[in-house]
Amino acid sequence: MGETDDGRPDVARLADMPVHGWGDAAARTGLPAGAARFLRRRIGTDLAPREPVPLASARLREPALHEGARTALTALVGSENVRDDRTTRLVHAGGKSYPDLMRRRLGDGADAPDAVVLPRTRDEVAGVLGICAEHGVAVVPFGGGTSVVGGVEPVRGRFAAVIALDLRRLDRVVAVDPVSRTATLQAGLRGPAAEQALARHGLTLGHFPQSFEYATVGGWIATRSAGQASTGYGRSDDLVVGLRAATPAGELVLGHGVPASAAGPDLRELIVGSEGVLGVLTEVTLRVRPVPATRRYEGWSFRSFADGAKALRDLVQSHATPDVARLSDTDETEVALAQSGGVARGYLRLRGHRAGGCLVICGWEGEDDVVRHRRAATRARLRRAGGTPLGARPGDSWERGRVHGPYLRDELMDVSVMAETLETATSWSNLHTLRAAVREALRTALTARGTPPLVLCHISHLYETGASLYFTWLARQERGAELEQWRAAKTAASEAIMATGGTITHHHAVGTDHRQYMGAEVGALGLALLRAAKKTLDPEGILNPGKLLPGAPSES
Amino acid sequence: MGETDDGRPDVARLADMPVHGWGDAAARTGLPAGAARFLRRRIGTDLAPREPVPLASARLREPALHEGARTALTALVGSENVRDDRTTRLVHAGGKSYPDLMRRRLGDGADAPDAVVLPRTRDEVAGVLGICAEHGVAVVPFGGGTSVVGGVEPVRGRFAAVIALDLRRLDRVVAVDPVSRTATLQAGLRGPAAEQALARHGLTLGHFPQSFEYATVGGWIATRSAGQASTGYGRSDDLVVGLRAATPAGELVLGHGVPASAAGPDLRELIVGSEGVLGVLTEVTLRVRPVPATRRYEGWSFRSFADGAKALRDLVQSHATPDVARLSDTDETEVALAQSGGVARGYLRLRGHRAGGCLVICGWEGEDDVVRHRRAATRARLRRAGGTPLGARPGDSWERGRVHGPYLRDELMDVSVMAETLETATSWSNLHTLRAAVREALRTALTARGTPPLVLCHISHLYETGASLYFTWLARQERGAELEQWRAAKTAASEAIMATGGTITHHHAVGTDHRQYMGAEVGALGLALLRAAKKTLDPEGILNPGKLLPGAPSES
Repeated sequence: MGETDDGRPDVARLADMPVHGWGDAAARTGLPAGAARFLRRRIGTDLAPREPVPLASARLREPALHEGARTALTALVGSENVRDDRTTRLVHAGGKSYPDLMRRRLGDGADAPDAVVLPRTRDEVAGVLGICAEHGVAVVPFGGGTSVVGGVEPVRGRFAAVIALDLRRLDRVVAVDPVSRTATLQAGLRGPAAEQALARHGLTLGHFPQSFEYATVGGWIATRSAGQASTGYGRSDDLVVGLRAATPAGELVLGHGVPASAAGPDLRELIVGSEGVLGVLTEVTLRVRPVPATRRYEGWSFRSFADGAKALRDLVQSHATPDVARLSDTDETEVALAQSGGVARGYLRLRGHRAGGCLVICGWEGEDDVVRHRRAATRARLRRAGGTPLGARPGDSWERGRVHGPYLRDELMDVSVMAETLETATSWSNLHTLRAAVREALRTALTARGTPPLVLCHISHLYETGASLYFTWLARQERGAELEQWRAAKTAASEAIMATGGTITHHHAVGTDHRQYMGAEVGALGLALLRAAKKTLDPEGILNPGKLLPGAPSES
Repeated sequence: MGETDDGRPDVARLADMPVHGWGDAAARTGLPAGAARFLRRRIGTDLAPREPVPLASARLREPALHEGARTALTALVGSENVRDDRTTRLVHAGGKSYPDLMRRRLGDGADAPDAVVLPRTRDEVAGVLGICAEHGVAVVPFGGGTSVVGGVEPVRGRFAAVIALDLRRLDRVVAVDPVSRTATLQAGLRGPAAEQALARHGLTLGHFPQSFEYATVGGWIATRSAGQASTGYGRSDDLVVGLRAATPAGELVLGHGVPASAAGPDLRELIVGSEGVLGVLTEVTLRVRPVPATRRYEGWSFRSFADGAKALRDLVQSHATPDVARLSDTDETEVALAQSGGVARGYLRLRGHRAGGCLVICGWEGEDDVVRHRRAATRARLRRAGGTPLGARPGDSWERGRVHGPYLRDELMDVSVMAETLETATSWSNLHTLRAAVREALRTALTARGTPPLVLCHISHLYETGASLYFTWLARQERGAELEQWRAAKTAASEAIMATGGTITHHHAVGTDHRQYMGAEVGALGLALLRAAKKTLDPEGILNPGKLLPGAPSES
């Protein structure tokens, strides 16, 4: 039944990210050349430099963990794994959304958990839940801490204390079955460590979200993450064969390795996407594929977003889908060219890309002959749909920069620019209506505050019945009202999405930011079902209060 | 947002099936030539003719529907749609499993519902549930009545009366969106009517289970049905974009037309496969595809089941999967040849099929050029894996006979032969272990009773991580102990499946026959989740007692 790998993956433990920003601070490269001029022209910013409040000055509350709970936790996992030093608490004070980073930059650490607990085994995770249920301590499961929707905000709800349950020590590859193409991974494995361990078996998950360097396997599944190649490899939720979750009511083990079943409701789908509110994922069995022998990425140009969207729809509806497929609108295409500099722009113009055109990136991965056939099928269709091939350069350039977005946001925040993203999905027939509504909502809301935005959009994932839309907006920061400014834009966009038939999130999850829309997503009876599941698995309500379910955190 | 079709589909309402058997009695063709000799040789039967007890002599209990409930139901749907005549009750007394048919043949109609109610609209379905909850009447949702696992058995549980809720009048196509490739269909539409209505838009569901002629769209989704082309088109549960279900607690509306979402747990997956225990599906929005311009079916021969299975695994793990892919083991291949007669056998031998070899059927459907490319890719891989092409004839012959199985069972039961099927799925690495265990269990259990069986097996559906196994067994009937004989075989096979890492059902669902294994499928905590969902949606427990959940029907 497959091979067991008991050894620890041979990967250096990644460091924490900086409290105020993304990634490895050493990897920052500054704003691209030409960006300043572009931003002045498009959003009228003066690019005023702005330093974050130093960590030492951040405002934290006193740790409030009850002594009995602390003693029990220490006895279970060791004192070095129950931490409440200032930096560790601040690192776990939230995720990496714009408002998260803004609060940290403003020196607000009031959200920080009372302690951070780092279990090593499934049994220890279960033990921590038992202690916290007994002592009335809220528990926030914490993987890579990369949530951009408030998913790891240490909300205490009706409890006196809250801990972050950091899963980084659950980092083992439990089993690999190369015949059935599955791998059982512990939840705390980060992207690079998971890929490195699987590569030793010639395998890959093919899951590359922008947060890849830090996000964990468990976090992906708990939030229904989609990666940049998910059109081909499948979303993270499509990869799930089985799972184990610790809950205050006991361990839930679902899936037992079968590829499909008609044995009633699929309860895996109740735990996948439950964001730590119903249980703590400790182990997942995922579908894997061979490391591709060949990777081909390339760019195409279309006259308009509508033409490009029609071409992508044709691909996915006719067995000619690449593994990666994105279509940027005119503004996003212009930004991509501005980032690449004048040389790239000249190259693309030579190739036939016209001003106002829209860039498509396609990528194929797999065995040489299969990639050749599939690429030929895609290219024939794109040509027929009026596309102009731009060669490998835009594709390779995109692939190199695919995890760069969050680093760029730090550069922008350093010069008083708000940079935020949101995403949704809808049917093909509703795509343009939804895109127009969200752009209009963001523009109206931010222009009314005197900070007219630049709104960029791309299609990031294709399905036979529809596609996702990913929006980025940039605007001059409203000094002294940064969070209100963000809230106004976010609310306007979210309401436009719900009013126009989109989903409140295609792959960023619900967290705190979207929970008020869950009623519109699943209806009152759907919420009742989620609450019944919560009551069954977490009768005291200690798990991740204030996430996923609407209403006061103390009720959820 | 797509086109609305308010008209009734222009399809003659199909008649009920005979109480004792399958399908249209006029379509029966008798046992194939040579079958008698083959059966005598392989299972030692004397093929004793056996007439069913006539309907007029069947034993029914007096209708027990409370007068208040009957009056309210009649006021809601009209007296012609609240039926309790003898034939209507017998038609709804169960599904079409071997024990169902055996009981009817023996004249046992004790299971028959007290009445059959036929609502016409979603509101009427909701109204029926309200009346039954108020008056304490159990409700068994009834689509085509094709369940082979006791899924429509009119169990009354703790209630004095039980009705069958026949959904055949909910037979409208609600909306078609040809751009997004979705169709919204009422739950009572039968397969041919659904396909005929979609064909007017150039579309198809591509869902062709053996029960296609009678089963309903709602029944497929409620039981996670898989069709013969589901490897290519996707299982019925993969097709679901949205759904509406009536429950005693109100209407549940899930999905709202988006192709994918990260907005929490996927509650559709809690209702899909819930077998009428959590709600009554009234409307589903499904993914559709264009009617294929080309259909190519063909046969291949492999030296052994293991060789064939390895070849099919290679196809599905390398982007070379046909839409239909089946592999029969040696015995099933022999039966298929025996059915086709001597001419076919000679043809296949000429083509290179050797005695003891295993037959593969592959089918591709779609646009001409796409079928050509895909077929070439499959064929190259099958050749490399040692397969011998047998040409179109075995494929076409299989396609013509694809819904014939249940008719043949009637012929066999008429001559005192037990003929039954069961199915499971597992990982590729566990496939041969599971197959051997189930065959052995069936042989041991039935040989011990003096009726050694012939056990046939095929792979019917491919997944990257595993496959389904479909078993058919034939044995001489044990006169006077027909149901005990069936129970012994069924129990032995089911226990072998659970002990060897299979799922208790890949596509026939749970019903009454498999519910005792649900604890092993989802664990105690999984059962608690299902019961919590039941309590939320159906607090009185009127919906389909005794199905899906283990324990006494009165508790479920």
